[in-house]
Amino acid sequence: MRIRFIEPIGTDTWVQPVAEALQKIANPGTEIEVVSLRNPHCPYHIEYHAYEGLVAGDIIKVTRDAGLKGFDAVVVSCFYDPYLREAREVSGNAVVVGPCQASFETVATLANKVSVIVGRRKWINHMEERVRHYGYGHMLASFKPVELGVEDFQKDPQETERRMIAAAEEAIEKDGAEAIILGCTQEFGFYDTLQQHLGVPVIDCAFAAFKRAEQLADLKIRFGWTPSRKWSCEAPPEEAEIQAWGVFNDDDPPIDSSVTVRA
Amino acid sequence: MRIRFIEPIGTDTWVQPVAEALQKIANPGTEIEVVSLRNPHCPYHIEYHAYEGLVAGDIIKVTRDAGLKGFDAVVVSCFYDPYLREAREVSGNAVVVGPCQASFETVATLANKVSVIVGRRKWINHMEERVRHYGYGHMLASFKPVELGVEDFQKDPQETERRMIAAAEEAIEKDGAEAIILGCTQEFGFYDTLQQHLGVPVIDCAFAAFKRAEQLADLKIRFGWTPSRKWSCEAPPEEAEIQAWGVFNDDDPPIDSSVTVRA
Amino acid sequence: MRIRFIEPIGTDTWVQPVAEALQKIANPGTEIEVVSLRNPHCPYHIEYHAYEGLVAGDIIKVTRDAGLKGFDAVVVSCFYDPYLREAREVSGNAVVVGPCQASFETVATLANKVSVIVGRRKWINHMEERVRHYGYGHMLASFKPVELGVEDFQKDPQETERRMIAAAEEAIEKDGAEAIILGCTQEFGFYDTLQQHLGVPVIDCAFAAFKRAEQLADLKIRFGWTPSRKWSCEAPPEEAEIQAWGVFNDDDPPIDSSVTVRA
Amino acid sequence: MRIRFIEPIGTDTWVQPVAEALQKIANPGTEIEVVSLRNPHCPYHIEYHAYEGLVAGDIIKVTRDAGLKGFDAVVVSCFYDPYLREAREVSGNAVVVGPCQASFETVATLANKVSVIVGRRKWINHMEERVRHYGYGHMLASFKPVELGVEDFQKDPQETERRMIAAAEEAIEKDGAEAIILGCTQEFGFYDTLQQHLGVPVIDCAFAAFKRAEQLADLKIRFGWTPSRKWSCEAPPEEAEIQAWGVFNDDDPPIDSSVTVRA
Amino acid sequence: MRIRFIEPIGTDTWVQPVAEALQKIANPGTEIEVVSLRNPHCPYHIEYHAYEGLVAGDIIKVTRDAGLKGFDAVVVSCFYDPYLREAREVSGNAVVVGPCQASFETVATLANKVSVIVGRRKWINHMEERVRHYGYGHMLASFKPVELGVEDFQKDPQETERRMIAAAEEAIEKDGAEAIILGCTQEFGFYDTLQQHLGVPVIDCAFAAFKRAEQLADLKIRFGWTPSRKWSCEAPPEEAEIQAWGVFNDDDPPIDSSVTVRA
Amino acid sequence: MRIRFIEPIGTDTWVQPVAEALQKIANPGTEIEVVSLRNPHCPYHIEYHAYEGLVAGDIIKVTRDAGLKGFDAVVVSCFYDPYLREAREVSGNAVVVGPCQASFETVATLANKVSVIVGRRKWINHMEERVRHYGYGHMLASFKPVELGVEDFQKDPQETERRMIAAAEEAIEKDGAEAIILGCTQEFGFYDTLQQHLGVPVIDCAFAAFKRAEQLADLKIRFGWTPSRKWSCEAPPEEAEIQAWGVFNDDDPPIDSSVTVRA
Repeated sequence: MRIRFIEPIGTDTWVQPVAEALQKIANPGTEIEVVSLRNPHCPYHIEYHAYEGLVAGDIIKVTRDAGLKGFDAVVVSCFYDPYLREAREVSGNAVVVGPCQASFETVATLANKVSVIVGRRKWINHMEERVRHYGYGHMLASFKPVELGVEDFQKDPQETERRMIAAAEEAIEKDGAEAIILGCTQEFGFYDTLQQHLGVPVIDCAFAAFKRAEQLADLKIRFGWTPSRKWSCEAPPEEAEIQAWGVFNDDDPPIDSSVTVRA
Repeated sequence: MRIRFIEPIGTDTWVQPVAEALQKIANPGTEIEVVSLRNPHCPYHIEYHAYEGLVAGDIIKVTRDAGLKGFDAVVVSCFYDPYLREAREVSGNAVVVGPCQASFETVATLANKVSVIVGRRKWINHMEERVRHYGYGHMLASFKPVELGVEDFQKDPQETERRMIAAAEEAIEKDGAEAIILGCTQEFGFYDTLQQHLGVPVIDCAFAAFKRAEQLADLKIRFGWTPSRKWSCEAPPEEAEIQAWGVFNDDDPPIDSSVTVRA
Repeated sequence: MRIRFIEPIGTDTWVQPVAEALQKIANPGTEIEVVSLRNPHCPYHIEYHAYEGLVAGDIIKVTRDAGLKGFDAVVVSCFYDPYLREAREVSGNAVVVGPCQASFETVATLANKVSVIVGRRKWINHMEERVRHYGYGHMLASFKPVELGVEDFQKDPQETERRMIAAAEEAIEKDGAEAIILGCTQEFGFYDTLQQHLGVPVIDCAFAAFKRAEQLADLKIRFGWTPSRKWSCEAPPEEAEIQAWGVFNDDDPPIDSSVTVRA
Repeated sequence: MRIRFIEPIGTDTWVQPVAEALQKIANPGTEIEVVSLRNPHCPYHIEYHAYEGLVAGDIIKVTRDAGLKGFDAVVVSCFYDPYLREAREVSGNAVVVGPCQASFETVATLANKVSVIVGRRKWINHMEERVRHYGYGHMLASFKPVELGVEDFQKDPQETERRMIAAAEEAIEKDGAEAIILGCTQEFGFYDTLQQHLGVPVIDCAFAAFKRAEQLADLKIRFGWTPSRKWSCEAPPEEAEIQAWGVFNDDDPPIDSSVTVRA
Repeated sequence: MRIRFIEPIGTDTWVQPVAEALQKIANPGTEIEVVSLRNPHCPYHIEYHAYEGLVAGDIIKVTRDAGLKGFDAVVVSCFYDPYLREAREVSGNAVVVGPCQASFETVATLANKVSVIVGRRKWINHMEERVRHYGYGHMLASFKPVELGVEDFQKDPQETERRMIAAAEEAIEKDGAEAIILGCTQEFGFYDTLQQHLGVPVIDCAFAAFKRAEQLADLKIRFGWTPSRKWSCEAPPEEAEIQAWGVFNDDDPPIDSSVTVRA
Repeated sequence: MRIRFIEPIGTDTWVQPVAEALQKIANPGTEIEVVSLRNPHCPYHIEYHAYEGLVAGDIIKVTRDAGLKGFDAVVVSCFYDPYLREAREVSGNAVVVGPCQASFETVATLANKVSVIVGRRKWINHMEERVRHYGYGHMLASFKPVELGVEDFQKDPQETERRMIAAAEEAIEKDGAEAIILGCTQEFGFYDTLQQHLGVPVIDCAFAAFKRAEQLADLKIRFGWTPSRKWSCEAPPEEAEIQAWGVFNDDDPPIDSSVTVRA
């Protein structure tokens, strides 16, 4: 089973450490390729929606490339779940997974009300729209910002943890949360301590997304449950348009750096 | 990993064949116990909501028993997803899965609109309520009844298949379905043929539920993501009530027959 | 007119006092039978959802028995409105009423926003789900817990009243409630004092449920408005299944104690 | 108990026959006053929304007058449930009831899906908005027009019945209705025949509204459950505005004709 | 282009100043007629829903009159958007606009979350119902009352401004508002100062309504986009009913005072 | 007033004709710049969601460029309303408009139920999601596909018109539409004939979008109602990120061809 894990940013800072972290939680036999994008414009984060839009094309191209190269699943590693509809259309047989959807699917059998710890208030409206779009709006207890940007989470882990615990405790006591989702893929490394401290499930969204990709890839291989290509899921015509117009330059996917590990 | 798969009916007819079928699709190392209920009143099906209610207590007892015996996950094998809220409350650390929720979680990344093939119109209102409760109402293209009772699906498989294909084709062409869910655990053995014939994903709800249980059990073991016990998920007090009042007779779970297999 | 009022618990503590209380508010000619369940496991309350599920079967059996014995209406006396769908299916011509639905139907013409005083936060998620299921979600100002269990309400009535008034005043001033529902059938004896103190309608849910049963029984007798038996309301086949399989033991309904009064 | 039943039209054609019909279904001791409006402009019907608006003022004045004269409840007899919010504000202690809300409250315990037989397609959007506003949208199977205006229903009862049966049968078989509401107060005299023919509950909306008024008046008298006067339900200040500005001419309510009967 | 701007109250206090204010913001060539109603009962405000209902008939008559006299658009100048459905039905080719709908249409492209500054808590439920009816419920951050009646806003402008700023700042900081709507047509004269102070868009609802009327009148003239007269929008039959019954007295629209200006 | 009208495709085929068409409907003094994108990959249409994603970056860049150059409003001319959230974030003071939102805002005061004529079933799910996101879901009568791709609408205008009329008539008679939206900017040139034939408003979505841009630009200039920059609308930091990282190459917006006209 092969999974491509896309860091939708233009820096290779996290490629190696993420690959190592995923290797530790992967099932035996899973091959994981972690990639960052070649896009030179948004090296560090896609907190802003304009930045997100600037990498849309690259996400789509790298997803299509994954489908062509026989990957079984693709993760777009940002809690905005950016451009899943678009990427899924050209993923071929590869299943495409986002951390927000995966986290809610994971928690849906474990709790009735959930709060999401986010970095900044900026993010909330977009994420809430995502959650409601998926149909999980009734599960939302609250979004709790800790006033940290994406790049700040790992700067002073102790301070980050302190803020996360404070936010989570308020979410539980005041907002009625019964479980917590860490709503940014950069909030890694905290779930376990928080979970033990709080006594409720604490979902690491990057881990949730990766394991969900493995799960769905398994179903795809075992039962042939590949993405539908009917109606709204119809892919563009390969010859008449994609080839004729040169829509994709398939020899040159905009991948900046990549690391492949195997569990 | 140990999974208990509950047939919520009072007959052992399906215990052995289901165990064998699950064995074939389980991950290596998964131990599966398939059980039927001792309840003498509803041997054959729980199509009627009153029947469903009559086995509620047994479902809860057998789920609690699974938690006490260290099972990692429990499947309640009926597309009504009967009494998950109640069973989850006393499941201890075991995750509790239902085929309806599992099927929609499976298909949510594969298609935008889905139709569910059901036996009788009787079932639709209850199932639609479940689907909307989970938050997947916007994904529903339609429920398509084939006018067969639960016990009829396996009587004349060719006729069943003919009706299923007719219903699914209408669902796709007229209702806009992009994927199909077989909405009864007795609709097993058909998904593959249908999928090849129709060219869209066709989800076997029993397989979806079992694999979902395996997936969530894996997350539970790996990350400690067990059911929340906070607020609405709080379990009853063990000593002060369960023991003091003798709420459960834990030595005697109402299991009629059971088969254990290992993949 | 005959109404069966089911206390869905395994104790006869409240049977006599409830019968006397209902007798005082019944219309002339109404015969009221108050019953508790024989179920030995949950003598005192069904606050926990597992307990609720353990008495599901008995609620259904006692409701069916009421239909067979010619009762016009049945009340299942718990604000969770437990298993109305299931009980209604086999109630014959008897109308089945729950306190939550009845309270909202009562208040819907009196106010636009309502708060519900409940015992513990545990209850809220389940009750809110009920309220939203009925379609009254837009009327909800808030649920206000007073941190008392079902059995505590009548222990120290002065303290209970004090907490209820505090919760209701906050509901009105802060949450915008225009009326109050006492969201537990054990919160009886308080509505009148609260109503005079607060100056807004205060609904006793047990009284609302009983009077609603009388009202619907009257419509049933007068206009033939009995429960539908079409589609999702279809009852199980009496001969082919209920008798053939011995689904119900109609000679022996699981009634523990019963008191009949006449207004 | 005294109930005022407002025909919100400027003709006395139906005052006497409606009074007689209600007399037959009233509880002993209920006094019923049926009134029509003095408004000279819309003698025959308020199918059009502009007509409805033209009688808004009179409905409010006659409702206020009922409150001042000590009526316990008021029915505004049109399935649009016209201006209940406005009328309720100045009804004093009288409860104000509309046939649409009353019909759905009546049927909510009897069936899960309901169709409404209406006269013309014109009506549907407004009525559907009402039904969704109350929170009963999930119960709607369909609105079925029979292409008759309000004044036509009683012209050729046999033809009306024929059309109603055809519409109801289609509602049941095709749309999944489990009960039928006759969605115009002029559709009286048909419910019984239809009910026997169709085998599902058929609700006469005028009867449902009148009996609902009796029920709520009973609760009002017995428990003091009068309309809230808090927040959005606050009534205008009597002295500082109503008297000072002469808002109402209370000596001269715009009642055209009235008939009082006693059951 | 001719626009009638209806002050739905029985005083001419605001007719002249509003005409002058609109003249300053109108496009060249727009003719504006500001009118108040002859209705003697509600001279000062329609805060109470009963008052609103008392002027319903006059709003409808004056709107119909506008259509007959060739106005291109009508504004009903109250944030309750009173009786738009009714007035639109008989407006002929004139487009009918309300301040609430217009304000949300204006802000919908400028911000994702909006708070509305209102006078009293009394108003909120009705206004929220309007906003949700239009479909803008997801944009609501909050309603913020400043505890002033309609007539109070202009009494002590400094105090009004102080309260508005306090409410708006809380709306932004606590409720997450990204823009502010001044939710009463009497809240004029404040938007500009608030906007500069707060740094977010502050919508004057009367200006928004007037400009929306101009815009829609332009589309009507240019593209023939007049109100639909199909199905629920069907107008009453002119000869067979309106003339035959004398529904409207078109020679005598209930206009109290009017001022016409031209930009 | 200056408006940039973006054709989000990589061909200049429509730039000149669209500029001429808009010039005819613009207000005096409006300057219109119509531009196509330099993106070489999707010359002809963005029917497929992947194509849409491939031009996301360019839409954002060209919108930012419009803000920097002092345009008052921007139209992104595709009924998918592609990437408005992203583009709005960096539009500076320019208002950003999409044809779908603009069309519904236009029709919302003219009719209660609307159908949208689209090219292919492929489009519907995405568009319906947009419409529901805006809050206009309750206005949807139906989407009606005419089985034409974007490029086909203008190939055989007579056949296109024939299909549109057939679809619109079915929408009106069967689905209850009271107005029609032509749901593709390539469906231009048909609204007038259809409107006269059908007798209900028929909205040309490109015209609706352009006029909406003019309207909102007027409000922006007159009242300072520019896009909010608070919370979710916060723009990225210009110096610390945009300049420091070189996010945008502002000297080189990806515009392929442009035509400027003045009305």
